[in-house]
Amino acid sequence: MAGKGKSKRFRLRRHVRRTPPGAMPGTIIADPTMPAPRIRAIAYGPAGFREYDITSLGELAPLRGQTPVLWVNIDGLGDAATVTGIGEMFGLHKLALEDVVNTYQRAKVEPYTDHLFIVIREAVATGKPPELETDQVSIFLGDDFVITFQEKAGDCFDPVRDRIRKNQGRICQSHTDYLAYALIDAAIDAYYPVLETYGEKMEELEDETIERATKETVHRIHAIKRDFLIIRRAIWPAREAVATLIREDLPHITPECKIYLRDCYDHLIQLIDTVETYRETGSDLMEIYLSSASNRLNEVMKVLTIISTIFMPLAFITGVYGMNFDTSVSAYNMPELSWKYGYFFALGAILATVIGMLVFFRRRGWIGRPRR
Amino acid sequence: MAGKGKSKRFRLRRHVRRTPPGAMPGTIIADPTMPAPRIRAIAYGPAGFREYDITSLGELAPLRGQTPVLWVNIDGLGDAATVTGIGEMFGLHKLALEDVVNTYQRAKVEPYTDHLFIVIREAVATGKPPELETDQVSIFLGDDFVITFQEKAGDCFDPVRDRIRKNQGRICQSHTDYLAYALIDAAIDAYYPVLETYGEKMEELEDETIERATKETVHRIHAIKRDFLIIRRAIWPAREAVATLIREDLPHITPECKIYLRDCYDHLIQLIDTVETYRETGSDLMEIYLSSASNRLNEVMKVLTIISTIFMPLAFITGVYGMNFDTSVSAYNMPELSWKYGYFFALGAILATVIGMLVFFRRRGWIGRPRR
Amino acid sequence: MAGKGKSKRFRLRRHVRRTPPGAMPGTIIADPTMPAPRIRAIAYGPAGFREYDITSLGELAPLRGQTPVLWVNIDGLGDAATVTGIGEMFGLHKLALEDVVNTYQRAKVEPYTDHLFIVIREAVATGKPPELETDQVSIFLGDDFVITFQEKAGDCFDPVRDRIRKNQGRICQSHTDYLAYALIDAAIDAYYPVLETYGEKMEELEDETIERATKETVHRIHAIKRDFLIIRRAIWPAREAVATLIREDLPHITPECKIYLRDCYDHLIQLIDTVETYRETGSDLMEIYLSSASNRLNEVMKVLTIISTIFMPLAFITGVYGMNFDTSVSAYNMPELSWKYGYFFALGAILATVIGMLVFFRRRGWIGRPRR
Amino acid sequence: MAGKGKSKRFRLRRHVRRTPPGAMPGTIIADPTMPAPRIRAIAYGPAGFREYDITSLGELAPLRGQTPVLWVNIDGLGDAATVTGIGEMFGLHKLALEDVVNTYQRAKVEPYTDHLFIVIREAVATGKPPELETDQVSIFLGDDFVITFQEKAGDCFDPVRDRIRKNQGRICQSHTDYLAYALIDAAIDAYYPVLETYGEKMEELEDETIERATKETVHRIHAIKRDFLIIRRAIWPAREAVATLIREDLPHITPECKIYLRDCYDHLIQLIDTVETYRETGSDLMEIYLSSASNRLNEVMKVLTIISTIFMPLAFITGVYGMNFDTSVSAYNMPELSWKYGYFFALGAILATVIGMLVFFRRRGWIGRPRR
Amino acid sequence: MAGKGKSKRFRLRRHVRRTPPGAMPGTIIADPTMPAPRIRAIAYGPAGFREYDITSLGELAPLRGQTPVLWVNIDGLGDAATVTGIGEMFGLHKLALEDVVNTYQRAKVEPYTDHLFIVIREAVATGKPPELETDQVSIFLGDDFVITFQEKAGDCFDPVRDRIRKNQGRICQSHTDYLAYALIDAAIDAYYPVLETYGEKMEELEDETIERATKETVHRIHAIKRDFLIIRRAIWPAREAVATLIREDLPHITPECKIYLRDCYDHLIQLIDTVETYRETGSDLMEIYLSSASNRLNEVMKVLTIISTIFMPLAFITGVYGMNFDTSVSAYNMPELSWKYGYFFALGAILATVIGMLVFFRRRGWIGRPRR
Repeated sequence: MAGKGKSKRFRLRRHVRRTPPGAMPGTIIADPTMPAPRIRAIAYGPAGFREYDITSLGELAPLRGQTPVLWVNIDGLGDAATVTGIGEMFGLHKLALEDVVNTYQRAKVEPYTDHLFIVIREAVATGKPPELETDQVSIFLGDDFVITFQEKAGDCFDPVRDRIRKNQGRICQSHTDYLAYALIDAAIDAYYPVLETYGEKMEELEDETIERATKETVHRIHAIKRDFLIIRRAIWPAREAVATLIREDLPHITPECKIYLRDCYDHLIQLIDTVETYRETGSDLMEIYLSSASNRLNEVMKVLTIISTIFMPLAFITGVYGMNFDTSVSAYNMPELSWKYGYFFALGAILATVIGMLVFFRRRGWIGRPRR
Repeated sequence: MAGKGKSKRFRLRRHVRRTPPGAMPGTIIADPTMPAPRIRAIAYGPAGFREYDITSLGELAPLRGQTPVLWVNIDGLGDAATVTGIGEMFGLHKLALEDVVNTYQRAKVEPYTDHLFIVIREAVATGKPPELETDQVSIFLGDDFVITFQEKAGDCFDPVRDRIRKNQGRICQSHTDYLAYALIDAAIDAYYPVLETYGEKMEELEDETIERATKETVHRIHAIKRDFLIIRRAIWPAREAVATLIREDLPHITPECKIYLRDCYDHLIQLIDTVETYRETGSDLMEIYLSSASNRLNEVMKVLTIISTIFMPLAFITGVYGMNFDTSVSAYNMPELSWKYGYFFALGAILATVIGMLVFFRRRGWIGRPRR
Repeated sequence: MAGKGKSKRFRLRRHVRRTPPGAMPGTIIADPTMPAPRIRAIAYGPAGFREYDITSLGELAPLRGQTPVLWVNIDGLGDAATVTGIGEMFGLHKLALEDVVNTYQRAKVEPYTDHLFIVIREAVATGKPPELETDQVSIFLGDDFVITFQEKAGDCFDPVRDRIRKNQGRICQSHTDYLAYALIDAAIDAYYPVLETYGEKMEELEDETIERATKETVHRIHAIKRDFLIIRRAIWPAREAVATLIREDLPHITPECKIYLRDCYDHLIQLIDTVETYRETGSDLMEIYLSSASNRLNEVMKVLTIISTIFMPLAFITGVYGMNFDTSVSAYNMPELSWKYGYFFALGAILATVIGMLVFFRRRGWIGRPRR
Repeated sequence: MAGKGKSKRFRLRRHVRRTPPGAMPGTIIADPTMPAPRIRAIAYGPAGFREYDITSLGELAPLRGQTPVLWVNIDGLGDAATVTGIGEMFGLHKLALEDVVNTYQRAKVEPYTDHLFIVIREAVATGKPPELETDQVSIFLGDDFVITFQEKAGDCFDPVRDRIRKNQGRICQSHTDYLAYALIDAAIDAYYPVLETYGEKMEELEDETIERATKETVHRIHAIKRDFLIIRRAIWPAREAVATLIREDLPHITPECKIYLRDCYDHLIQLIDTVETYRETGSDLMEIYLSSASNRLNEVMKVLTIISTIFMPLAFITGVYGMNFDTSVSAYNMPELSWKYGYFFALGAILATVIGMLVFFRRRGWIGRPRR
Repeated sequence: MAGKGKSKRFRLRRHVRRTPPGAMPGTIIADPTMPAPRIRAIAYGPAGFREYDITSLGELAPLRGQTPVLWVNIDGLGDAATVTGIGEMFGLHKLALEDVVNTYQRAKVEPYTDHLFIVIREAVATGKPPELETDQVSIFLGDDFVITFQEKAGDCFDPVRDRIRKNQGRICQSHTDYLAYALIDAAIDAYYPVLETYGEKMEELEDETIERATKETVHRIHAIKRDFLIIRRAIWPAREAVATLIREDLPHITPECKIYLRDCYDHLIQLIDTVETYRETGSDLMEIYLSSASNRLNEVMKVLTIISTIFMPLAFITGVYGMNFDTSVSAYNMPELSWKYGYFFALGAILATVIGMLVFFRRRGWIGRPRR
């Protein structure tokens, strides 16, 4: 429980900004707890590709302009100097770089004079048991370069890297915009397995709520609703961002690329559709939970009422024959006590009461129909 | 119960994509569990019509261009080669073909250079007891061809086929757009009997909730609400798609056809209206259910309270005369026990208590007014 | 109850379409259960008016073109031939005629080449007790004719007929559009008395909920909410339709007429306002009902708790002195039984307990403050 | 209670129209229960002002055109002839005059050929205890006149009259539009003290709900929510109306005046903001009320359970020693009865039971922690 | 409690306007309870800066025009003369000045002929325990001046002052619009720490609701929801205001500045996102609270039912053997009483009943599974 509380706390704190209030815009303060950056570059074009593992920024400068596309990927934002250095090398805007290190950005598209700045959030499940989080992916798209920043090393870009290596599809024949599309698409595709997992969880929770709801169930419903809120907050703005790329006439996006982005937009719509359905189901589960709690109470109360209604009259009968009226004073004082079959008479009265009550309850449908 | 759980599971999983995340766009991976394709073609025009049952793609090629309209219908998507082959033959876009086999698409209209791609979902009830599902119908509309893909063999296009055969109405005199309209209209018309069935279910459920609600009722309300959610998710996007066909100036849609599409749009609005009314009624039923649960609890508690309130004082009276005070010690020790009519006195006190209580409950309206 | 269930059923079924799915658009299938048509015509202009009761369609043809305005009103849609015949005579579009006989249309305005097709729904209360329904009024507006179809004979057009007869206001000096306005306005005005009736019902229901709620109350609230839903579904689209007439530049609507339509739009806004207020009040009533059910339960439980709390200790006291310890064995065995005032001591203990409990309950506010 | 019911009824009936359904548009039927009209005129301009108390319409005609602005104010709509007479004198449109006497209009702006017709509702609290109502203020704005109709004599225009008399601010130097603005602003400003009163009521109700909720509380919450609904329905349309005056290019509104109307619009936004906040607080109160009802039930049930759980075992113990087994038959028959300290043993068992139960309840937190 | 009530009251009253209803627009009435104004000016440009503490308005006049930017900051609005004086000196519009002293304005942007008037609300937590409030910041932006009014001395502008002093970033090289941006940004940044505090509170409340909910919990949830309502009402309009500055072509805002304002807009979107998430979580907490109240009731009722169901049959058994039938009259009268092991037989029956009941409850899952 304590562990869960802590991870929750972490998640909520994330939305708080690192740059101090009132600081100069464009101030870049790295989070020292983040991993140190690892820089990888791929320079490619129709003629082929080359991969580089960059250890100092100096190695990066000569690569630019050699091939139609240079893709630089930085995993880990723990070092402000690296971010600033790359920003200066490629002429990236200071405000955009500030957003790169403040990794609480919503998905968005911001056009600057000679590059586009795109933010997308990708779904990541870390820890034991897995905790859902969304990590920020920052993409700079220029005429001859694509620069991507990820909070920590992830594997969602690997399929794209593979397609470049294998010269698969049209990626190597295309401009930087197609690479940016492929990266956005890969980040968004990563939501599908996450939602599949949640679909399974949801079904289990549904079974649990209907068949064996406990006190914990309501917290599980609450937790899953919150996770859907996190996913929703990540993909709704992504939809707007991709719509902006399609609709607006941005300098770095070619018309051919827009057909592919429309496909990506479609995926986002489907994801949103699924999340909204799950959210509605979540609210329904809460309703079912409350109604079954009320049913359980009804059942408990029926047991109590049946027991009381049967045994209270019985107790009364035995009470009557436990009274100490002096039978010797008068023949009117509890003559039953001296009847030969007085005891059987009393037991008979008791039996009649029990049967009467059972008939009454059966008519009301409180007993005899199983699992009502 | 287990069976129900499984079908539910299936329904939720459907929304998950088959193409692996990060795969090259346009990758076509068929679902091997789907039925093998059956291809039927009708070539027609004002001069007449001919029908073909196609067993190999080679038979299909020569049919094109012979008549003003060639309609190819493929039932079953179990074979990727067929889909790819037809796509190449008619120059269909790869992204659209990918959507054909990933049968979780929302209804939509996508213009490509020389054809329109239209997706509509049709309502299908399969299994025992019938489970509502929506199947994807993919329509490609070109200058001289209409190609339709259905997940599995359905009969909703039969009336259209009949109209062509009988040269009924204006269908044989019209362009491909009129055929596409007729197919969309047929798919949408198929929702009417489905909604009629649900209307009957809803009325039964309403009677059940009001008159004989049980624990299962809440699950039935939940299940029907979920089915309406499925229908709703199928027809809202269809409305948008048809509105796009009417509003936008698409190359393959003639103005005469738009009057017919407007009629189709009207039907969608009516369907949506009906579904929304049912959904609201569903929420109302939940409220009624909860209020009747609370009424039942009230009733149970009244029975308990009445019984307790009557018998507790009686038990007290019998308890008093069951005390063992020594009447021989003093005349003040329970002299009633030795009265001549002591027993009758006690019974009288008991009767008076019972009558007093009954009057009290009657005044409160707890008893004597039936079915309150 | 059964009768109510049946009428409900009827109401829900209405929304289902008569034309079979996939039928050729423009198929006109009359509902044989509907009344046979009664045709009345008024031909009028500034010069005067003449009324005709038409028994065969042949009588109708020569009337056209004799006066500036010819108004043909058909009550009852039981005969497809009449509808088709009139359609051909005035050149009405097949799709519009199909909508005339499928009397589940939402209010709408559809421009065709040489006429406008307008649908409005009017409120009708039929049966015993009155059941709310909305009937479809179909209006065709041409250059020199206005044709109206009503599901069954109603009297809501009588005031318009009277105004023509008395040459009142500007109706006889105006074009067909003014007549169409007058008819729409008359149909909409008919909602006012209906809403007045519902206002009274609502107030009664409010009093009932607050002062004497029973199990039936929740069903009454449910029923009235459903009726408001029906009214709402009839007048929201009417508002859109009238707004279309005002806003769009339709060939048959003159600018002078738009000032009058604006007035009609205003009435619709007021009706909607009133319905929405009633709907919100309906939801509030449900909340009040639930809270008063919970209050009643609280009250019942207090009675039970008070009775139990008073009599259980008493039963304990009498139980103690009913124990059979052998007082002769030892002086420590229930010496009270042999006290001179032992019985009074026990009765005193009982009295003290009762008083103590009453004080306790009074302090808690459970008794002594009336109607809490 | 009856009195309250009646005033409620009156409020709801107000929304019903006086003109009979289907009547000729522009029919003016005065409500005879309304006060007789009192007509006051102020003619003013930069050169000064003169006030007139008009007793017959004939006195009014010569005043027009003498000064830049003639403001005629009519309090009371009980006489149709007055309304019609003024309408003819100033050329007011019949449809607008019909709206003047049907005092259930929403706030609106309607441009006619040579004048603007503006409706605003003002808040009025009448009766004992004060009942909130909104009265209709109808304003006609022409080139050289402003005519205002009020349902009954109110004082909300007095500050404007004073500003004219004292030649304060720019009112006497301005056109008729500035006067209309000043009147609208005065009517809207009158909502501020009303909302202040409701703010105080709301706080009292909040305290009541949290600290001493009774059955009446829920009705008070319901009543205040309904009053906010009335205010809301009055000021939302006013916002739209003022926005229309600002945004649209109406002939009688000068650009200088629009800056002032913008200020007025701002006030409306603030009023709406406040009302919406109160409405949300009202819904929260309902939730708090329900949760405290459930808390009270919990408390009642705990008392019952504690009492039962303590006394039932005690009753069992005393019951055991009240059994009449014949101790003389065998030494195994209730030997405790003949023990020397048998009675103390029984009392000890009773005491131990009580202590054990108290410890159990304390551990559960049911007793000993005050005000849980 | 009383203290809390009072502060609440204060908060609600704030929204009420100070200028009397119907007063001349532009009337400036200062609130005497507000602090006296303290005026500070900074004149700066690329060449350097100078700071002034102004004690009389006469000192201020000569400063204007000496440097590209003159920033005058007034803390405290207790003196109407100061506001009027500054207004006249810089030609500020009377309506804007009225809004400065009526400190209940929503955030907004109003263009006047030669200056922009911007209102932003900043979050302030005062008192013990801290009470959330929002204070109004009024900004006038002219060609060569920025004038800011704050309700009371705050420190949120200090970082901006520091940046001017240190000539940090581009502030000293820029126009007045950049200063206005920096001030707006600083006011908005101040919401971040406030939301961080509320995030912590929310987590504590979540733990409390789930683990140890008491009666007070519901009031705490209510209080925090109300605070989020206050924040929300402050930042939603701010978002609109900043969007207006970006989107509209206002004379005093340069295109370069708009890139910075876009960043500020982004921050507002994030703040809104966070607040909305918290609000949804607040509603969820209420649901959890209610469900746990219902769980607690269930638990209480189970204890009662278990106890009753066990002890009532026992009481019956003891009652039977407490009956006084005369065993001497007949051998059929309670022969058990005279059995040798009669007492053990009775105790055995009791034990069997207890065990049977425990098995029954265990099977139902009411006992034996901890913390259900």
